Amino acid sequence: MSAINTNFLSLERNYLFAEVARQVREYKLANPDKSVISLGIGDVTMPLPRCAVEAIGAAAAEMGAADTFRGYGPEQGYDFLRDGIADYYRLRGVELESREIFVSDGAKSDLGNILDIFDRGIVSLIPDPVYPVYLDTNIMAGNKVVYAKADESNDFLPMPDYKIDADVVYLCSPNNPTGAAYNAAQLGMWVDYALAKGAVILYDAAYERFIKDDLPHSIYEIEGAKECAIEFCSFSKTAGFTGTRCGWTVVPDALAVGGVKLNGLWLRRQCTKFNGVPYIVQRAAQAVLSDKGLKEIDVNIDYYRRNAQIISGALCDAGVEHCGGKNSPYIWLKCGCDSWDYFRTLLCGAQVVGTPGSGFGKCGEGYFRLTAFSSYENTLEACKRIKSLYRKI
Amino acid sequence: MSAINTNFLSLERNYLFAEVARQVREYKLANPDKSVISLGIGDVTMPLPRCAVEAIGAAAAEMGAADTFRGYGPEQGYDFLRDGIADYYRLRGVELESREIFVSDGAKSDLGNILDIFDRGIVSLIPDPVYPVYLDTNIMAGNKVVYAKADESNDFLPMPDYKIDADVVYLCSPNNPTGAAYNAAQLGMWVDYALAKGAVILYDAAYERFIKDDLPHSIYEIEGAKECAIEFCSFSKTAGFTGTRCGWTVVPDALAVGGVKLNGLWLRRQCTKFNGVPYIVQRAAQAVLSDKGLKEIDVNIDYYRRNAQIISGALCDAGVEHCGGKNSPYIWLKCGCDSWDYFRTLLCGAQVVGTPGSGFGKCGEGYFRLTAFSSYENTLEACKRIKSLYRKI
Repeated sequence: MSAINTNFLSLERNYLFAEVARQVREYKLANPDKSVISLGIGDVTMPLPRCAVEAIGAAAAEMGAADTFRGYGPEQGYDFLRDGIADYYRLRGVELESREIFVSDGAKSDLGNILDIFDRGIVSLIPDPVYPVYLDTNIMAGNKVVYAKADESNDFLPMPDYKIDADVVYLCSPNNPTGAAYNAAQLGMWVDYALAKGAVILYDAAYERFIKDDLPHSIYEIEGAKECAIEFCSFSKTAGFTGTRCGWTVVPDALAVGGVKLNGLWLRRQCTKFNGVPYIVQRAAQAVLSDKGLKEIDVNIDYYRRNAQIISGALCDAGVEHCGGKNSPYIWLKCGCDSWDYFRTLLCGAQVVGTPGSGFGKCGEGYFRLTAFSSYENTLEACKRIKSLYRKI
Repeated sequence: MSAINTNFLSLERNYLFAEVARQVREYKLANPDKSVISLGIGDVTMPLPRCAVEAIGAAAAEMGAADTFRGYGPEQGYDFLRDGIADYYRLRGVELESREIFVSDGAKSDLGNILDIFDRGIVSLIPDPVYPVYLDTNIMAGNKVVYAKADESNDFLPMPDYKIDADVVYLCSPNNPTGAAYNAAQLGMWVDYALAKGAVILYDAAYERFIKDDLPHSIYEIEGAKECAIEFCSFSKTAGFTGTRCGWTVVPDALAVGGVKLNGLWLRRQCTKFNGVPYIVQRAAQAVLSDKGLKEIDVNIDYYRRNAQIISGALCDAGVEHCGGKNSPYIWLKCGCDSWDYFRTLLCGAQVVGTPGSGFGKCGEGYFRLTAFSSYENTLEACKRIKSLYRKI
């Protein structure tokens, strides 16, 4: 017997973005005169809001002076930020206690680490296609993965199947990569399922700020969710924090499994294996949640939204079936062929880079993801080229 | 069967520092006229070095401008910092490739998370007394814990026992809480043990910057260590980063278990469950490792060292047996009674707060930890009181 976690050996190579980069590199080498535009990136491009930059500067100055220096902070985050996040939820009519909120260094970390408080070998219900971290972290933990298929038949929004006895259920809404977002009635059905099965919903709300329609931003807008759901959110896409690293996780007091409160377990996990988010970053996040900050970030969100509308409009003009883009920075289009073939067609025919849907799961085959995170000018140009390509083929 | 990780239920309540705080609070309430000095804190008190504050400000400005903004960085850290850390090791004659270095948000996180790449149920050899995180994370993982006793008989430096077949071995040098530090010959014996047993040493070097004597700062100064050891280090105590959060973990290329390279496993773990340290913090850490930065932090280290010498001198004067304080910010003294009784004697008799040794493990009973992290003035005053108390008893 080996002392390593052999589950790691069952992980597939995470070649998706590396392979995309390789093929783009090769194409550029062979075609040095062509200008290639990427609509493939899942990263923001607008700079950090001014309020955040100023807050970092002020906090760094505090850290540099003996009388205002701060050492170890609370592992679960400073009250000033937890209170700010509770206020943010209150704007949507969701009441949370600060102690139910844990400041994190991003949704990805906590979505991965949350499995620490669950048993090994549990049944995890994971959408397909989806953000690869859910699957990979469950493979690492040796859990049993069951898929909830997202396809045209369900508008890319899988609904509960009572034949499946899941211990945890991953939901991501608005979804990465499909851009589909649940409405309140649909989320209510998931809450009903979780309560009936004693399952815990792990709700990834990282893209909630992109919602424009009358849809829930938080699962806690649904009655009963505090008894069955943990919510993960992030400043990454909301406020351009992908390189600044801050998010939060909500573990409601009312959430218990087998009589054990998960809030206490997660608190113990974080106090033991985490030492909190940098003070300077927490001050930046607090600034983002101020009235002034929220106005500032919405200018950026609107910028990305406009890009999404441009892409969606171009696809409509070209007669390409797609979803997303309305409440999400992601557009999910139907290739009409193999995802990777489509990737090459778009790259060679329009010099536009996107992401093959098959990289997000088996059900992603035949689909393709475009993102709204490029510049306005590049988005316009890329869409012009895509339309022109479709006229030719 | 419950879906939670029931190992959490086996954890003891982490009451040590909470209980210390409670008793101090009660004492202060009952004795409002007394001035209480804490030599109990394990947190730094000197402000962040000027070079770090400046680097944060400059990096925040970069993040606020479209043309210099940075989104997701490499999960394992930017090359500018990994190269800086490699250079830091080179000062001690240790050659590391940048890809062997993983930038972390602190030693605590990685010391906890590292167990992800090991099997469940492994045998972990843990010193007693020691930093409680080693034990708690192993309990959470359901591992089998065996203790290596640190006491007067081994100068608080446990040595290998070949009767024990450990899968992982935790070493912390200079040690928290005893302040004892291994020499090269002793570490060589641990490397020999690990190589003979196929065990992995998890080497916590968080206090290396306090070493003054001719002792190894890194386990990689020992031949063969790259084949059997992972090293954790931190800017927390070195540069006052306890609230700024940056450290690093070295997983050498040559380290394999059962033919599987741990560097690849840890890279996969980090890419899946971590999204890197904030860019602004990595720039601050880089500044600390510059020539100017190292000079700046050594002024702070010397300040704490002087405090440690003052405490050690006072204990000598009072005839109190102790170790540490020479290559470490921690002083470990023999109470001559129960650790908690001593705590109360010191609090009530000298208005000085320290930490009962029993809080760090069974072998800590009868011992007591004082730290050098208070101010010079408070350290002097506390020592005066301790000496005066010993004259009375």
